[in-house]
Amino acid sequence: MSRFERPNIQHMHGYTWGEQPNDAKTIKLNTNENPMPPSPQVQLALADISADALRTYPQPTADPLRDTLAALHGVQRNNVVITNGGDEALRLAFTTFAGPGALFGMANPSYSLYPVLADIADVTLRPVDLQDDWRLPENFSDDLVDANLVCVVNPHAPSGTLLSVDDLQRVAAALNGILLIDEAYVDFVDPSLRYQSESLLELDNVLILRTFSKGYSLAGLRLGYLLGHASLIGPIVDKTRDSYNVNYISQQIGLAAISDQAYARSTWDEVRRLRSQLQANLNQLDLPSPPTQTNFILVTVGGGAKLNAQALYEALKERGILVRHFTAERLSDKLRITVGTQEQNQALLTELTDLLS
Amino acid sequence: MSRFERPNIQHMHGYTWGEQPNDAKTIKLNTNENPMPPSPQVQLALADISADALRTYPQPTADPLRDTLAALHGVQRNNVVITNGGDEALRLAFTTFAGPGALFGMANPSYSLYPVLADIADVTLRPVDLQDDWRLPENFSDDLVDANLVCVVNPHAPSGTLLSVDDLQRVAAALNGILLIDEAYVDFVDPSLRYQSESLLELDNVLILRTFSKGYSLAGLRLGYLLGHASLIGPIVDKTRDSYNVNYISQQIGLAAISDQAYARSTWDEVRRLRSQLQANLNQLDLPSPPTQTNFILVTVGGGAKLNAQALYEALKERGILVRHFTAERLSDKLRITVGTQEQNQALLTELTDLLS
Repeated sequence: MSRFERPNIQHMHGYTWGEQPNDAKTIKLNTNENPMPPSPQVQLALADISADALRTYPQPTADPLRDTLAALHGVQRNNVVITNGGDEALRLAFTTFAGPGALFGMANPSYSLYPVLADIADVTLRPVDLQDDWRLPENFSDDLVDANLVCVVNPHAPSGTLLSVDDLQRVAAALNGILLIDEAYVDFVDPSLRYQSESLLELDNVLILRTFSKGYSLAGLRLGYLLGHASLIGPIVDKTRDSYNVNYISQQIGLAAISDQAYARSTWDEVRRLRSQLQANLNQLDLPSPPTQTNFILVTVGGGAKLNAQALYEALKERGILVRHFTAERLSDKLRITVGTQEQNQALLTELTDLLS
Repeated sequence: MSRFERPNIQHMHGYTWGEQPNDAKTIKLNTNENPMPPSPQVQLALADISADALRTYPQPTADPLRDTLAALHGVQRNNVVITNGGDEALRLAFTTFAGPGALFGMANPSYSLYPVLADIADVTLRPVDLQDDWRLPENFSDDLVDANLVCVVNPHAPSGTLLSVDDLQRVAAALNGILLIDEAYVDFVDPSLRYQSESLLELDNVLILRTFSKGYSLAGLRLGYLLGHASLIGPIVDKTRDSYNVNYISQQIGLAAISDQAYARSTWDEVRRLRSQLQANLNQLDLPSPPTQTNFILVTVGGGAKLNAQALYEALKERGILVRHFTAERLSDKLRITVGTQEQNQALLTELTDLLS
């Protein structure tokens, strides 16, 4: 600690990221990466990049990518801002709309980065507990009516539960501040549910976060974006964003990945297929989980199991399989397991069978 | 403007970036890019990147790059934080050390991003005017003794003037807050001057900013870093930085560029050679400039010239050559000209001769 730190920084704790071992042997089911590789178009785009193009600054606002994403979502360029990962999008929502003295609301539990960003921004945090079924309680918007910024992950992390667009519309209409809908996992939602939140962008207090990390298998690239009313996106593009926040290569690769929608959709289909299978198999091992529309499964390790959740996490880790365990009260008896490849899921099930029987 | 913006954001103006045309024809002498391409090692590193490696998150703190840079500067890993361009390093200095209610000091004029970052951070800005020779005035540290954060660009932008390490040491010792020395252009300093500021890192209130944008010809990559006392670097690495702020590709390319010091040094030598030549030629055209240790030259367009600075900027632009003109009072009769390649400099001189004679 330095005497020069701002008081809010001195007193806060940083974000705890999921373990990122860089050996190829570990089976990583802990940070919700897509088990499928990126589109072959990504490798082609990489091969096309000339080092000489890195000599000059990138297009400051990543307009070609903004235009492509605007067309994909049926909006205009001024409804899109490209960010250095979804995390930057979240940070910029604070920088632009919620500073010291402001109130920040969130569903609890959800993405563990939110309270960290609230501390950095020096805002007051008001977590509102989700119901037992991980849905928003009746009092959610009443409790947060005066919040400057409210974040809801949909589908929800870490449970995988999906709220309907109508539910979100009601919350947005009831709030005096901004509702940010964090759709990091939305690509894995079953298409038969016809979840399409773009209609909410007509409201002047809704931001929707998207990322290339999960749906496009590009967590290593750090590329995300916000969709929103032009009055919300404008100040982020023109004022609060670092002037060249997305580098030249990320812009090119983002364009390549987005252009190959057929490939992306095929990975989403495959993740859904693997998810159903894994969830059923975990259930057979007495590891039940709520319905999930994401690429992860939140299993409960019941009191009757041979190992509790924490011990099971550690035993799996010892056998080379990483899953995520959270110490927060309502989550401490659970494990969040990312859907892996067929082989990874099978390896997990084999070890779990051995550990729990 | 949105009613949801924080008041400081509503009232501020964003940064005005230098024009970034993407035609190959324009001669870009306006944003201080290195005229030499990046090291051949960069292209090789690009060719080595497998798209599959992008599927997972990058090493969160870019430790291999931190270790390489620590060795280069004779410090330890915990004295280095890697950032998404130098701009992120500056922003993080505010986020960590200077929030609302704090005082931010800067030499005036200097990098025009500083006042923008001060507005975003909602701190009080105190610019202290430089002397006529662009050096710090006697009263500099007296006026800023209570500032939480003070930024000095060295060598100075937009004049190119170099302060000595002794000068900086005196300022740092006199301040109660942090001195951030922005060394974006330091690679172009004449080696015979033996400027080496690493000794200042023993002080617990000094941060040194470096970037790959200029010296390593990688402005398009967005890669920078801060050097400092572990007590200053720690909270940035562990708390205020976005968790995965530097993507996988940038980490790999940064390592490749740094590994080829011989190539980098050869470009710095060449820029110095071209700089001397260009400065002498501009002088012959009655466009005098102060001594410069950067890759740009700040010429004064005298009252007797056929065109004033603004008109000359516009006439050059019409002929396909971009230089930088600032409207600030002390700079309005000047142009900042980036040192280009031999051919670019010759084209500039030809047009200037035509326009001014």
